[in-house]
Amino acid sequence: MENDEVILLDFWPSMFGMRVRVALAEKEIKYEYKEEDLFTGKSPLLPKMNPVHKKIPVLVHNGKPVCESLVVVEYIDEIWKDKAPLLSSDPYERAQARFWAAYTDKLYDFGTRIWTATKEEFAGGKKDLLDPLKLLEEAALGDKPYFGGESFGFVDVALIGFYTWFYTYETIGNFSIEAECPKLVAWGKRCMQRDRVSKSLADPHKICEVLLEFRKNRGLE
Amino acid sequence: MENDEVILLDFWPSMFGMRVRVALAEKEIKYEYKEEDLFTGKSPLLPKMNPVHKKIPVLVHNGKPVCESLVVVEYIDEIWKDKAPLLSSDPYERAQARFWAAYTDKLYDFGTRIWTATKEEFAGGKKDLLDPLKLLEEAALGDKPYFGGESFGFVDVALIGFYTWFYTYETIGNFSIEAECPKLVAWGKRCMQRDRVSKSLADPHKICEVLLEFRKNRGLE
Repeated sequence: MENDEVILLDFWPSMFGMRVRVALAEKEIKYEYKEEDLFTGKSPLLPKMNPVHKKIPVLVHNGKPVCESLVVVEYIDEIWKDKAPLLSSDPYERAQARFWAAYTDKLYDFGTRIWTATKEEFAGGKKDLLDPLKLLEEAALGDKPYFGGESFGFVDVALIGFYTWFYTYETIGNFSIEAECPKLVAWGKRCMQRDRVSKSLADPHKICEVLLEFRKNRGLE
Repeated sequence: MENDEVILLDFWPSMFGMRVRVALAEKEIKYEYKEEDLFTGKSPLLPKMNPVHKKIPVLVHNGKPVCESLVVVEYIDEIWKDKAPLLSSDPYERAQARFWAAYTDKLYDFGTRIWTATKEEFAGGKKDLLDPLKLLEEAALGDKPYFGGESFGFVDVALIGFYTWFYTYETIGNFSIEAECPKLVAWGKRCMQRDRVSKSLADPHKICEVLLEFRKNRGLE
């Protein structure tokens, strides 16, 4: 394991890529980060390593690619199983974590509808994003410090990248997620206090800046 | 385990429900099957057991629900791990299997486009379904007897329910999947030779009959 070659093909604002970065950081795995700039063009390596979807993130471990962010996170958890377990050893808890992690994937489309919407379209988009966030807060997080309970785990890894986009959704959509989902935002702040997490994530202000620029170029602002 | 209470909420033509039925059969688990007739109405038990999606299949194991078919299959594989393992013990093979199993989920939408399409819309729908089937055949199955290699495994479980719908797609869309994907159809026939599989699946002709009736009622035939 010491001499393993670990390469991550990623794109800095990707919430899916951030899942893998956080998982690797939690496990304290050294890796080479290769930026695939999806704005200016992907490298020839990406379609070679992920011929099916041609998408980041891809973890290339000793030359072998693993694709799809949640599959990658689970792979990381299984390969480097001695440190910072992300999934519980209990099959029922594992199933619950897999269920909620898959649920967080839905947020991508709802979030995208906000930053690609005209000002007039925001109202519906806000509700579509807030409803699943409220459900995550009420049904999955509750009063626990982390989704996994006392320790940072699989669902936390799955969701934390989206948290870095909250500022963008709020700025563009002109609403407060904290006002609607205070426990969820408190969870996000709690996660950010972990160095391994905060150092793996993109800067929310930088994400927002890029998205505002995108909107300006498309005549949406 | 002997005295476990295992209940499956399911609907007979569901390819997602069939995944769970096949997994339980492979493990030789006795369970109570509760039909949730999605045509005539769901029971109050379904939204209670799956409040998030209100969808079948739901496995209720000793009173605790597990939802989302692939999550359920993996749960079954972990709980009853001593018999007929569906996922490999090798992390890389597990990751590959999870990747392809997730990929099979795409087939649902493509298939639905065929049986809900007007005659004029079929041409595009056929290609949309055949392309991922060809990819599964070439990139994931190859010349192996099963997706998992020599033994029936996780991806086989994920895909076999769709195979029971091939006859419907072909009849309604007037094309031959076997002509385009001979190895994939040979794989389906091979799986059907397993009693545990064939006895768990819905009758392709019955599925087709119901769908043709649906199309007639909607004025699509």
